[in-house]
Amino acid sequence: MRIMRAEQFNLAREVEYGTPEQNESVRGIVEAVRTRGDEALLELTEQFDGVQLSAAQLRVTDEEINAAYDRVEPDFLDALRGASANIRAYHERQRRQSWMDVQPDGTVLGQVIRPLKRVGVYVPGGKAAYPSSVLMNVIPAQVAGVPEIVMVTPPATGGKPGIDPYILVAAAEAGVKEMYRVGGAQAVAALAYGTESIAPVDKICGPGNIFVALAKRAVFGAVDIDSLAGPSEIAVLADDTADPVYVAADLLSQAEHDEMASSILITPSERLAEEVSVEVERQLVLLPRAAIARESIDRHGAILLVDSLQAGIEVVNRMAPEHLEVLTADPMSLLGSIENAGAIFLGPYSSEPVGDYFAGPNHIIPTNGTARFSSPVNVDDFIKKSSLISYSREALLRDGAHIMTLARHEGLEGHARAIEVRLEKEAGAAAVDAAAQQTIKGKKA
Amino acid sequence: MRIMRAEQFNLAREVEYGTPEQNESVRGIVEAVRTRGDEALLELTEQFDGVQLSAAQLRVTDEEINAAYDRVEPDFLDALRGASANIRAYHERQRRQSWMDVQPDGTVLGQVIRPLKRVGVYVPGGKAAYPSSVLMNVIPAQVAGVPEIVMVTPPATGGKPGIDPYILVAAAEAGVKEMYRVGGAQAVAALAYGTESIAPVDKICGPGNIFVALAKRAVFGAVDIDSLAGPSEIAVLADDTADPVYVAADLLSQAEHDEMASSILITPSERLAEEVSVEVERQLVLLPRAAIARESIDRHGAILLVDSLQAGIEVVNRMAPEHLEVLTADPMSLLGSIENAGAIFLGPYSSEPVGDYFAGPNHIIPTNGTARFSSPVNVDDFIKKSSLISYSREALLRDGAHIMTLARHEGLEGHARAIEVRLEKEAGAAAVDAAAQQTIKGKKA
Repeated sequence: MRIMRAEQFNLAREVEYGTPEQNESVRGIVEAVRTRGDEALLELTEQFDGVQLSAAQLRVTDEEINAAYDRVEPDFLDALRGASANIRAYHERQRRQSWMDVQPDGTVLGQVIRPLKRVGVYVPGGKAAYPSSVLMNVIPAQVAGVPEIVMVTPPATGGKPGIDPYILVAAAEAGVKEMYRVGGAQAVAALAYGTESIAPVDKICGPGNIFVALAKRAVFGAVDIDSLAGPSEIAVLADDTADPVYVAADLLSQAEHDEMASSILITPSERLAEEVSVEVERQLVLLPRAAIARESIDRHGAILLVDSLQAGIEVVNRMAPEHLEVLTADPMSLLGSIENAGAIFLGPYSSEPVGDYFAGPNHIIPTNGTARFSSPVNVDDFIKKSSLISYSREALLRDGAHIMTLARHEGLEGHARAIEVRLEKEAGAAAVDAAAQQTIKGKKA
Repeated sequence: MRIMRAEQFNLAREVEYGTPEQNESVRGIVEAVRTRGDEALLELTEQFDGVQLSAAQLRVTDEEINAAYDRVEPDFLDALRGASANIRAYHERQRRQSWMDVQPDGTVLGQVIRPLKRVGVYVPGGKAAYPSSVLMNVIPAQVAGVPEIVMVTPPATGGKPGIDPYILVAAAEAGVKEMYRVGGAQAVAALAYGTESIAPVDKICGPGNIFVALAKRAVFGAVDIDSLAGPSEIAVLADDTADPVYVAADLLSQAEHDEMASSILITPSERLAEEVSVEVERQLVLLPRAAIARESIDRHGAILLVDSLQAGIEVVNRMAPEHLEVLTADPMSLLGSIENAGAIFLGPYSSEPVGDYFAGPNHIIPTNGTARFSSPVNVDDFIKKSSLISYSREALLRDGAHIMTLARHEGLEGHARAIEVRLEKEAGAAAVDAAAQQTIKGKKA
């Protein structure tokens, strides 16, 4: 693994938004489903997934879900349930309350917090079908109180018809009651605009290939979407006290994801740098996904030397990594200076997979530097807020003149008159004058 | 104003995303500023605003801001300060705390909440320069704790060089310390990528013309952006008890915004429908912006008759209006059934301009049905959350087997090994076996 000075490393990464041809293809698919509904959906499913379905077969039946339970190992189910409970507990702490501010004059202001009504979760097929991601998308929506959570997933796994039973079990465990065997851009379009068989949703989330990502962008506005994830990243900030075996294993756990994944060690310790470099080589060759990890480490991995931990934190803050591990003598003491990182793992026992699978925090985390301004998936992503204004007569008589002043300044006489007709009616024309006088007095005081 | 049955009204509205030529033009502008910085910024400012500036002249000076104070009327300043105080108070109630969950085994999980570091607020020039919108964009960011808030606004007002003094005063009152005389797509690009004179930001918000909107879309990903606003909308839900004069005035205050604005009355009362229709005609001709209001009312306005208030609420929920006024005998009793509305105004004294200018809630509210899944501008728009995981040794020994089970199921052996190396080292290879045994026992139990 290459070792270099932090200054020599280029933090900028390019984001992939698809070729013009891919965008064109997705637009066609979305438009077809939007205008022709189920008919187009079934045609496209046959074309892309090689599976012929009737509209009645789109929905996954309870029998299939029950059969899936018989096909998963008990230790998988145990682990899944343990993870679910932790994820639920962590996200429960994020729930928010509507609030009201009841003022002495009788005015009530507030914020009404409500869950979205219907959310669609996309789950990819094939090797990218991760039960853990099903939990991470569904549970926050459920904790938010979303009453209708719908899963869509391609009707075939690895070329064979049928949905991965682990995915069905994960969705059922997370509480999904409505599942459809449909994938790709056509599934996203169906969720956004609805078809005869699938009712439209308010938000679509979940990972997918480039066509799914482009389809989400295309329907954004008609529905909400989650953010588009880039390749996964880890930054490890470590000092002399870190165990090079742990550091190397954690870097490799990121690198095995895909060739574009990025694993970066930042350290002021030349000794640790050397040891981790050697250890990465030793561990890498033993991995089943060694070829992928090799390419990731060679192309996007690096060990960056810095003058101090504080200098290392500056690199971290510029990088805004998806995952940050802090393996130093006193990691908690550095928390206050970490400005940008999606998820922060402190200390030797907080290996990234602890968070990927089990601890409770969400594993869907902003990538590509967007942790500067965005957050891991959380309960707030599935709520909306409405402002509440119940102004009292007294307050309107008191504030009317100010409101009219501001409206008239902006050339919006109609706004001013909406207040004026009330002042006149409530207290007679005299009140309008009185309100104006009050303002003038206020100025002099 | 036309009266019809609610079923006959088409709720769908088209969203404008610019012509291909406009998109192309914006891409060129953004790329020029991104690659050539100040040089391109100054060229484009001369080209589009007709103002020749040096880089040193981009920043608005303290002298200009002080001079602006001398040019605004005292009653404007009073009203502005009253509005600012209310907006600040309302948004202060939205502030959130980081939290930690300290578990008995020593594990600490949490969510670290931090403000964005640097936010750019776009303020349009000319007639669309609304001081109230400056407050509504800046104050939530400030309450969130954003340390650097930057305003950009075109260098000329109505063809003449110089920035509207009311805008400068509003920004100064809201607490903006850094202002630049630059507008259009070029200003958005400068905020997103930075130039020699303007440091890049983390988020860009504020309204603008189609070029500004398209530029925001183009830079999204490099920075965060606020949502793209459509034409303004009001729905008034009213019964027999509503005053037709108030209702008509409120509908017109929306209609005067622009020809695309939409004003809808929903009522089970035929009498009210007739009276409001007449009253709208009477009040409309008296407005300075009568021509705009006329077109808005004729093209996008309607009085919709429904069988009951409950049926009216269903129409409201499908519409998801930006603004909803409830003028009924007991408006609070309907609050629970209002699922979709950006801002809810209850009762006869809560005319929409009360919220547009003064009460405190934000006046930047989701349009075009997006209140189904999004919220008025609020403090959360200017924070980000980082997950915190500090796992204890005890917890890792306890949960390690589950984590390895899930990782191995997903084919991510490197993830499992990151846990395994720790279990081996912390407790010897026996611990790995013991953990596996525990899992098996757990299954049998």
